[in-house]
Amino acid sequence: MSELVKNAAGRVVPTEINGRPGVPYMGVAAYRPTGNKLAPPIRSCADYPLDGNKVVGSLREALERCELKDGAVISTHHHFRNGDLVANPLWDTLADMGLKDLMWAPSAAFACHAPLIKYLDNGVMHHIEGSMNGPLGEYCSAGKMRGLGVLRSHGGRYQAIQDGELPIDVAVIAAPTADPLGNANGVRGPSACGPLGFALADSLYAKRVIVVTDNLEPFPCIPWQIQGQNVDYVVKLDKVGDPAQIVSGTTQVTKSPDRQLIAEMAARFVAETGIMRNGFSFQAGAGGITLSFALYLKELMKKAGVKARFIRGGSNKYLVDMLREGFTDFILDGQTFDLDGVRSMHEDPRRHIDTSPFTSYNYHGKGNFASMIDVVMLGATEVDVNFNANVVTHSDGALQHGIGGWQNCLFSKCTILAVPSFRDRIPVLVDKVTTLCGPGELIDVVATERGIAINPRRTDLIEAARNCSVPIKPIEQLKAEVDRLTGGPPEPVALGDKIVAAIKWVDGTVIDSVRQSRFP
Amino acid sequence: MSELVKNAAGRVVPTEINGRPGVPYMGVAAYRPTGNKLAPPIRSCADYPLDGNKVVGSLREALERCELKDGAVISTHHHFRNGDLVANPLWDTLADMGLKDLMWAPSAAFACHAPLIKYLDNGVMHHIEGSMNGPLGEYCSAGKMRGLGVLRSHGGRYQAIQDGELPIDVAVIAAPTADPLGNANGVRGPSACGPLGFALADSLYAKRVIVVTDNLEPFPCIPWQIQGQNVDYVVKLDKVGDPAQIVSGTTQVTKSPDRQLIAEMAARFVAETGIMRNGFSFQAGAGGITLSFALYLKELMKKAGVKARFIRGGSNKYLVDMLREGFTDFILDGQTFDLDGVRSMHEDPRRHIDTSPFTSYNYHGKGNFASMIDVVMLGATEVDVNFNANVVTHSDGALQHGIGGWQNCLFSKCTILAVPSFRDRIPVLVDKVTTLCGPGELIDVVATERGIAINPRRTDLIEAARNCSVPIKPIEQLKAEVDRLTGGPPEPVALGDKIVAAIKWVDGTVIDSVRQSRFP
Repeated sequence: MSELVKNAAGRVVPTEINGRPGVPYMGVAAYRPTGNKLAPPIRSCADYPLDGNKVVGSLREALERCELKDGAVISTHHHFRNGDLVANPLWDTLADMGLKDLMWAPSAAFACHAPLIKYLDNGVMHHIEGSMNGPLGEYCSAGKMRGLGVLRSHGGRYQAIQDGELPIDVAVIAAPTADPLGNANGVRGPSACGPLGFALADSLYAKRVIVVTDNLEPFPCIPWQIQGQNVDYVVKLDKVGDPAQIVSGTTQVTKSPDRQLIAEMAARFVAETGIMRNGFSFQAGAGGITLSFALYLKELMKKAGVKARFIRGGSNKYLVDMLREGFTDFILDGQTFDLDGVRSMHEDPRRHIDTSPFTSYNYHGKGNFASMIDVVMLGATEVDVNFNANVVTHSDGALQHGIGGWQNCLFSKCTILAVPSFRDRIPVLVDKVTTLCGPGELIDVVATERGIAINPRRTDLIEAARNCSVPIKPIEQLKAEVDRLTGGPPEPVALGDKIVAAIKWVDGTVIDSVRQSRFP
Repeated sequence: MSELVKNAAGRVVPTEINGRPGVPYMGVAAYRPTGNKLAPPIRSCADYPLDGNKVVGSLREALERCELKDGAVISTHHHFRNGDLVANPLWDTLADMGLKDLMWAPSAAFACHAPLIKYLDNGVMHHIEGSMNGPLGEYCSAGKMRGLGVLRSHGGRYQAIQDGELPIDVAVIAAPTADPLGNANGVRGPSACGPLGFALADSLYAKRVIVVTDNLEPFPCIPWQIQGQNVDYVVKLDKVGDPAQIVSGTTQVTKSPDRQLIAEMAARFVAETGIMRNGFSFQAGAGGITLSFALYLKELMKKAGVKARFIRGGSNKYLVDMLREGFTDFILDGQTFDLDGVRSMHEDPRRHIDTSPFTSYNYHGKGNFASMIDVVMLGATEVDVNFNANVVTHSDGALQHGIGGWQNCLFSKCTILAVPSFRDRIPVLVDKVTTLCGPGELIDVVATERGIAINPRRTDLIEAARNCSVPIKPIEQLKAEVDRLTGGPPEPVALGDKIVAAIKWVDGTVIDSVRQSRFP
């Protein structure tokens, strides 16, 4: 077991993670990287077909040509979400090939990947570095995985791959449309999912890249979100994704009166503090409250005659409507949350801008979009009185969610966490979050159904909100109200000693760790 | 002076080039690179403005922040061609700053850069690695430059930057439109020039990147041909390019009857050998014969009811017409040769595909477009009886032209060199080319006004051309006809001993060298 130290946030973290050094978190912007980006091997066209046809007969043939060894790192992306049909047969093939101790580096794993637990059990898969939603998170939480789970934000995953912290041997990129050279996109085909940005770093930095598609079209496949010049092999499968499951489950506007109230108050707050003004920008992706927020904000924009410069998606029906109706010049799409979004991206390529974790989130670049956005609406599983927040574990300590772009988005000019003040009688506002994912100094506003709390550090926002029509309260007061309702703060959960996962900050440092839970 | 050796093409080349090792050419596809791509330093958003505003007051301020040292490498691109208004003031500034022995790595230099000769004379600029058209080529040819000139193809320049052979300290990227983050494109603005692909490698691999624009617009500037996440500083100037000079001078269809005949015969050859068929592709950029070829081919396509899958530009009026009239699905734009091309690229973004030397030409990638094209039309200054060709020197040995994409295009399925058999009474068909730029085994056809010669290696083409209506002759016969007309082969030119420039092959090896000429 590696040494444990307390980091700058007071959290106990391991100094070694899966055999590589872990740098303890130093503060939001305190760590300065040294050294150089990962340098992939130089290839030569002399080793690739001159006619550009890289199609091979099967996924197994492609994998065999990659000359994989035990212990290799295999990556996939999660643009198909719970409708992914590639990762499971990929791992069946790797198992058939007799490989052992492989690491899986998905951008995220979903419930549909539960069958892969057998490969963690039997030694084919050593451990997972990537967001683990559902059963794989539970498996990790229960302390059954041989290596540490490593959770990174979307931007942090790009940073880790770019910086060589997560070196990938073979990237398997499932693509709704591709050509024989390996150019690929997600905007067309029976498994259309929108962008393929989560696979960008993999395509640039992995030693070998395999594109897998069910919709092979003649060169040139455009837009080439993945460029064929980075691809080694192309494989045609019958079906790479289940369209019914690709669409996120979180694209329904909330019907809960409490959550509608949160959304409405947040929208009024944004309008009345002057954040909503001509040329402003906001992020509103999936999630019932967020969608509702976008609808309320749209009404307020209409009343005030305000137009946004851009909206950060995931695109969905509601944002696409705003684009069509002239409420914004552009949508910047990181992913796409419903089929209206996918369709609009295909039909309106000049106003839908395809983004990636490199352009949007990578903290080890020369700036990114996340910090330029005027206001973002995010969720959390817990928020504490110092505005620190948690998105990966529940109050029982069990790992249940990935970080997504959440940490990256905290850099916006105004970050609003929209949360119900309690869930199932368990307070969301707590004294100390179970797992620290986002430092309080980056979280500006907490919006609950009982009112809005502004981070005391943001004296400018407090001033701007002086005549705001929504109830503004100190976070301690909100918490006290919740505690009264729920019967006081919850009992601390008993967790095991064993560290099962590390939570990375956007710069690759370790902001917290997750201990074994009694779950399930 | 470094050691000289004979390479696999029998050409004498230096084994050391400007202090770095030179690998002698080994054959078209014989050299296999080892090692890894250049790894640029890891940066952090902590060192860039969170609001995305990287605009600084002046080019000098930007350069000073780059902390340049004597001997540094400065790069620029040539999308403005002879209308570039940035390189000259850039070098005035570098001189003012007191810097010495800098290397200039332009993608190409033009006559408008003649004023920079003074900096070669006075020590500010040590030497140039990049295509030298006109006066700078003459200067190099005359043996006056301190370092060796290094001429690379467009793809070879990308390869050299990617592989670390041409490490750039500061890239100065002139952009017709940009935003404060550094996102930039060439499709809009008073200096619109089309793509910015020649600056792509610079933006990815240079240690520091400065974007200079005369058309700063609010974020997001799309398309982002250059991505702001790779850019350090943005500078606003009054004018970055002279639109009248941006357009190439070689976009007039030839009026010479001899050259029209070459174009017509080449088009008939392509049609009658079956290369022209539904879904085929061809490259036809600038140059009077090439444009004329495109027009003849269009007529033949019309008659035969044939549609191309894609045309490789330089877009120009004639290709844009073909796109509009349905003769092709796509134009793949590497650069843009006239304002019709620029306009169409802006107005029809789904059928104009923006390419770069990475996608089109880089030989050290996993394939590229050049080898996938059915037929390309190229020029040459000399072709010999073994189909070897020269594009950089004239028969007097003087360095006059850059390689451009010429070497890269030789990999097409059928490469046609369209050349008059003599120019100014000097034969173009010779026994041995003055400078070897392209090995004969890649050159399939030589088309002259006196007939067409097919490379004997291409028995398939010879067979396909059996019933061709154009005169097909052995190249020796063509040469004999020309020699009779011009009074025999020209006297060998007396050249100096001093090597003034190295010609790189697409894989970074040295295919030939250029000796000092008596020019001017």
